[in-house]
Amino acid sequence: MIQRVTFIGAGNLATHLGKALSQAGIEIVQVYSRTLESAGTLGTILGAPFTNEINKIDQTSDLILVAVKDDVIGQVLDQARLHDRMITHTAGSIPLDLLKKYTSRCGVFYPLQTFSKTRAIDFSEIPICLEANSTEILGELTGLANKISSAVYEISSGERKILHLAAVFACNFVNHFYYIGDQLLKQEGIAFDLLKPLIRETAAKIMEMDPYEAQTGPAKRLDETIINKHLELMDNRPEFREIYRFVTNSIYQAYKK
Amino acid sequence: MIQRVTFIGAGNLATHLGKALSQAGIEIVQVYSRTLESAGTLGTILGAPFTNEINKIDQTSDLILVAVKDDVIGQVLDQARLHDRMITHTAGSIPLDLLKKYTSRCGVFYPLQTFSKTRAIDFSEIPICLEANSTEILGELTGLANKISSAVYEISSGERKILHLAAVFACNFVNHFYYIGDQLLKQEGIAFDLLKPLIRETAAKIMEMDPYEAQTGPAKRLDETIINKHLELMDNRPEFREIYRFVTNSIYQAYKK
Repeated sequence: MIQRVTFIGAGNLATHLGKALSQAGIEIVQVYSRTLESAGTLGTILGAPFTNEINKIDQTSDLILVAVKDDVIGQVLDQARLHDRMITHTAGSIPLDLLKKYTSRCGVFYPLQTFSKTRAIDFSEIPICLEANSTEILGELTGLANKISSAVYEISSGERKILHLAAVFACNFVNHFYYIGDQLLKQEGIAFDLLKPLIRETAAKIMEMDPYEAQTGPAKRLDETIINKHLELMDNRPEFREIYRFVTNSIYQAYKK
Repeated sequence: MIQRVTFIGAGNLATHLGKALSQAGIEIVQVYSRTLESAGTLGTILGAPFTNEINKIDQTSDLILVAVKDDVIGQVLDQARLHDRMITHTAGSIPLDLLKKYTSRCGVFYPLQTFSKTRAIDFSEIPICLEANSTEILGELTGLANKISSAVYEISSGERKILHLAAVFACNFVNHFYYIGDQLLKQEGIAFDLLKPLIRETAAKIMEMDPYEAQTGPAKRLDETIINKHLELMDNRPEFREIYRFVTNSIYQAYKK
């Protein structure tokens, strides 16, 4: 049973996950981060020792949890020279295989959520996508994940890649459209608050309805009068106009079938 | 004071608005729709007389509320030959001026929300955007709107156009990205349910945070390794790949500044 965890990384994900695990009674043995400042910040939050010396990572824990940016996972592990410890990473788009070079007991612990420093997160509903190189490790990780979430899934590296891509559309790209909406309103001095009930309902709707059924608006019915008026309104924002054109066409294509 | 309303139109908006007004004690005098079936359906729901004969529209009410598709408002009013009645339309992208041809007392009653037939809506938080050709009519419409919503705004035709455009991004386009996420997951047999907590949090986040601050993910930091992997995953969906490319670039442009 995993009871003691070492954190490599102290960013948004490490912070939120560290808090959740700590509140669930897991002992955070140590926080390592490249800078002493970030290691210290998270270590202090978690009441755990911290270090920025990569050769001093505490390997006495049950699990080394690597929560650094996807493209530096290999680099950090190259430098850390861990003994054959249980290691997991937390990255959506990195295959499990990457870790096999560093340990005989590895897994992935991927919480599918968007984390911002300033916003508290309730982990209990966050899907945690697990993968491991053995049934035993998978069982260990399942036990750990169940302590903080009731939505624990076994997801292969191939599935996780697609999930991560879908998440980029459903989260990052969606948020960008909130941003574009905000930008358009700002030009006219209209408060973004006016859009919030619509944004809430748009998200709430697809909790019950299929997104295909939930669609409304001018693109779906190819209402060219409205579409052309909208394009005109973005004469001074060509990048928004191009996105509008593309997405409108994509919606229309989906419904004309 | 507006107490009796005639509905022209029986679609999603008319249905939801009719129910809300009726529940607030407003008498629905009659429902007109182009087909007897849809007039009858809404008339029955509202306990109101109904007709599909345009020359029999009941003009004894305080307000004729036109809730038909944007591009047929003029056509329907041409045919209806109303006497000089108080008329409002409910369209985001149609200026107030269109109505001046048909009456000396006109306004716009635009609820900023997405309406689907099968989904119940709580009107109390929906922004209702009002415009009128006189202070007196504006006062009348404000009184009516306050009966069903606590978010009533005076919004000019110019502002409303922009609001409608912003709403297309924040609702229709957002929903399309939920759809694309769903399509991508379906290819791998992964349940859309896994994305729902992320979708909820993405919307909940910008109730408190500025959308610009809320952004995360590979596009913001131009993580080309991940971006290229994602593009590869969509080799068989070129239209999704192009949208991915465009939106990723737009996000990157917003953050590199």
